[in-house]
Amino acid sequence: MAGKADNIPTENQNGAPFDEPSITDVPITDEEIFMAHVGGKLSVELRSPIDTQRDLSIAYTPGVAQVSRAIDNDVALVSKYTWTDRLVAVVSDGSAVLGLGDIGPRASLPVMEGKSALFRTFAGLNSIPIVLDTKDPDEIVETLVRLRPSFGAVNLEDISAPRCFEIEHRVIEALDCPVMHDDQHGTAIVVLAALKGAMKVQDRDITSLKVVISGAGAAGVACANILRAADIEDVVVLDSKGIISFHRQDLTEVKRELAERTNPRGLSGGAAEALAGADVFLGVSAGKIEESLIASMADNSIVFALSNPDPEIHPTLAAKHAAIVATGRSDFPNQINNVLAFPGVFKGALDAGARRITERMKLAAAEAIFSVAADDLRPDRIVPSPLDKRVATAVAEAVADAARAEGVA
Amino acid sequence: MAGKADNIPTENQNGAPFDEPSITDVPITDEEIFMAHVGGKLSVELRSPIDTQRDLSIAYTPGVAQVSRAIDNDVALVSKYTWTDRLVAVVSDGSAVLGLGDIGPRASLPVMEGKSALFRTFAGLNSIPIVLDTKDPDEIVETLVRLRPSFGAVNLEDISAPRCFEIEHRVIEALDCPVMHDDQHGTAIVVLAALKGAMKVQDRDITSLKVVISGAGAAGVACANILRAADIEDVVVLDSKGIISFHRQDLTEVKRELAERTNPRGLSGGAAEALAGADVFLGVSAGKIEESLIASMADNSIVFALSNPDPEIHPTLAAKHAAIVATGRSDFPNQINNVLAFPGVFKGALDAGARRITERMKLAAAEAIFSVAADDLRPDRIVPSPLDKRVATAVAEAVADAARAEGVA
Repeated sequence: MAGKADNIPTENQNGAPFDEPSITDVPITDEEIFMAHVGGKLSVELRSPIDTQRDLSIAYTPGVAQVSRAIDNDVALVSKYTWTDRLVAVVSDGSAVLGLGDIGPRASLPVMEGKSALFRTFAGLNSIPIVLDTKDPDEIVETLVRLRPSFGAVNLEDISAPRCFEIEHRVIEALDCPVMHDDQHGTAIVVLAALKGAMKVQDRDITSLKVVISGAGAAGVACANILRAADIEDVVVLDSKGIISFHRQDLTEVKRELAERTNPRGLSGGAAEALAGADVFLGVSAGKIEESLIASMADNSIVFALSNPDPEIHPTLAAKHAAIVATGRSDFPNQINNVLAFPGVFKGALDAGARRITERMKLAAAEAIFSVAADDLRPDRIVPSPLDKRVATAVAEAVADAARAEGVA
Repeated sequence: MAGKADNIPTENQNGAPFDEPSITDVPITDEEIFMAHVGGKLSVELRSPIDTQRDLSIAYTPGVAQVSRAIDNDVALVSKYTWTDRLVAVVSDGSAVLGLGDIGPRASLPVMEGKSALFRTFAGLNSIPIVLDTKDPDEIVETLVRLRPSFGAVNLEDISAPRCFEIEHRVIEALDCPVMHDDQHGTAIVVLAALKGAMKVQDRDITSLKVVISGAGAAGVACANILRAADIEDVVVLDSKGIISFHRQDLTEVKRELAERTNPRGLSGGAAEALAGADVFLGVSAGKIEESLIASMADNSIVFALSNPDPEIHPTLAAKHAAIVATGRSDFPNQINNVLAFPGVFKGALDAGARRITERMKLAAAEAIFSVAADDLRPDRIVPSPLDKRVATAVAEAVADAARAEGVA
């Protein structure tokens, strides 16, 4: 064990993406985590060194004036001669960070640095964390409009629902560049990819599934939308008060819209009524689900218990009744992780020069994630490994193609 | 010549800081400049790679949650566990870029990337360009207040006068971190260091000098202030209308304040009246100065013709009458370049945890630049080379000491 513990941190699995991820059987200590964060996880580096007077005269005055003058004459050249064209701002107000809630912009920074690190690692993109000391949607939108010339795309992150819906919508309208709230759409894309994988393993058709989504926050709403866009008719969404339906008088605007597109059988009640005979349970809330309810689902049922760090039901318990079980955790099989989606989605959008990230581009991303490992899927491997570097490349190509086909590039 | 041209770009002079900079006797072509800018000059990199499932679990979920939780409990830990403590935002609205004027935020980006590159090269700091699509002082201040948790210091850059004075003042008041408008104070610090160097070469006392400053913009005002703070009594400032004095009825508030602190002999008139018998001409405008006026100065006169790319007077002409001549250009002797100041000033301020950059810290920076090469100065080498990496270290130590002594750390 000691020998293995020593080896793990320097192991590089990139060359062998099909290998099982190295499940961390040596627990990660707090000390190891904090040591890895001293000074932060990112650095800004030069693409070419400034060592000589000549370097200085090219990268700074007087040489740089030529480049500034050229962009002043033709502003489109900014994408060629600056880093912004490959730069994603990871923007958060720290209001809904992981399972930790509203911990504010400063405490959210390690998560945002991690996200920027993943953009570099998997998509080769530059990325900087921008954390904002305001939660006011007007101020957030206004700030990003003013910052627009500083970057090429915006990954909104860890912004609480329902504010996240309005903010994303308004930022998309205000900026002429790719914008995506990853907690919504990154999750939705990977969930759809995983469901495609499960269908392949089970040799079933996705459109006839009965799907129950527990949670009507950022991820729940986006998952409902993408599953409907993928032609799944029977989607039922639960919030803390039960099934979302027209009968409810307490719905927010977002949930009223959701009621229009979901629950085609007009169910009412709670989790018990929703899950009886259902094919798929998708947990994207911090709630729990009773084992007996999982047992009440149809044969060959599928459970995605994605809450982090504590799944809605322990995967071992769920596996007593379900044919396929997935979680958001790296220490169980079938990890459903947004990192499969967002690096490739932004890379593809930037590669194509897309001004938006559309539903069609998201569907293309899900199909690409599924396709990368389609011939190598098993009940305990319905998605590729998060470390499989082929994924971002495949997603980027599919997203760029979709953008061009749709004319948003 | 061909052999030398081939060698120059890969030559590394860091090991030999006392060597004369390699004057670019092979002209730099536009093609070379533009090629060096394709894709921009910066990249964001990981400080440790994410190669394994274990790396991913530490840098991202679930491990990162421990770090976010710790900062949530004690916000001071943000400086230990994120990159912000060593991150300088280079902020501009693109309103006064080099000698190019108001070319806007996008066209200013190559300059800001260059600045960030110099922060990394000379001070080992992270730095990101933040260019703003607004010129409204209220909006600029408000935006930086909202962005405050994203960085550790603000280098304001290329903002036009007189807006730059109000904006810098208000940003300093609003933020609890080091803030400096480099066009003002970086220039002023290096000018003072150069004047100290000239005094050492001439074995003269700085306080009795008669100094004429041509230009009352960002650099001119800051130079006047630092020279007065260095106990030079006789400073006369010229703007486009002539000598700034109480007699003038057309002065802005900034220039009225300047009139209170300068022109002790109550001169009126223009450059001719100011320069007759003066010891130092400091050009920080885009204007020209006649050779005959330089000839009218006192014996052993000193000319700093700092306008870029075209000095107020060609150094060869000036040298017919002046004992010491300096410019802002790398292809003449005595280059007075801000890069001698700003990397070390911000490094020192951040090292000390300073909440402000004070006049005393700026004076300490000037003294440190002068001291690095004090024993090796000549009339054509009154400041260290911009590539001398000892400078930023010395400046940082002096600035940090001054901050601690003054209690702003």
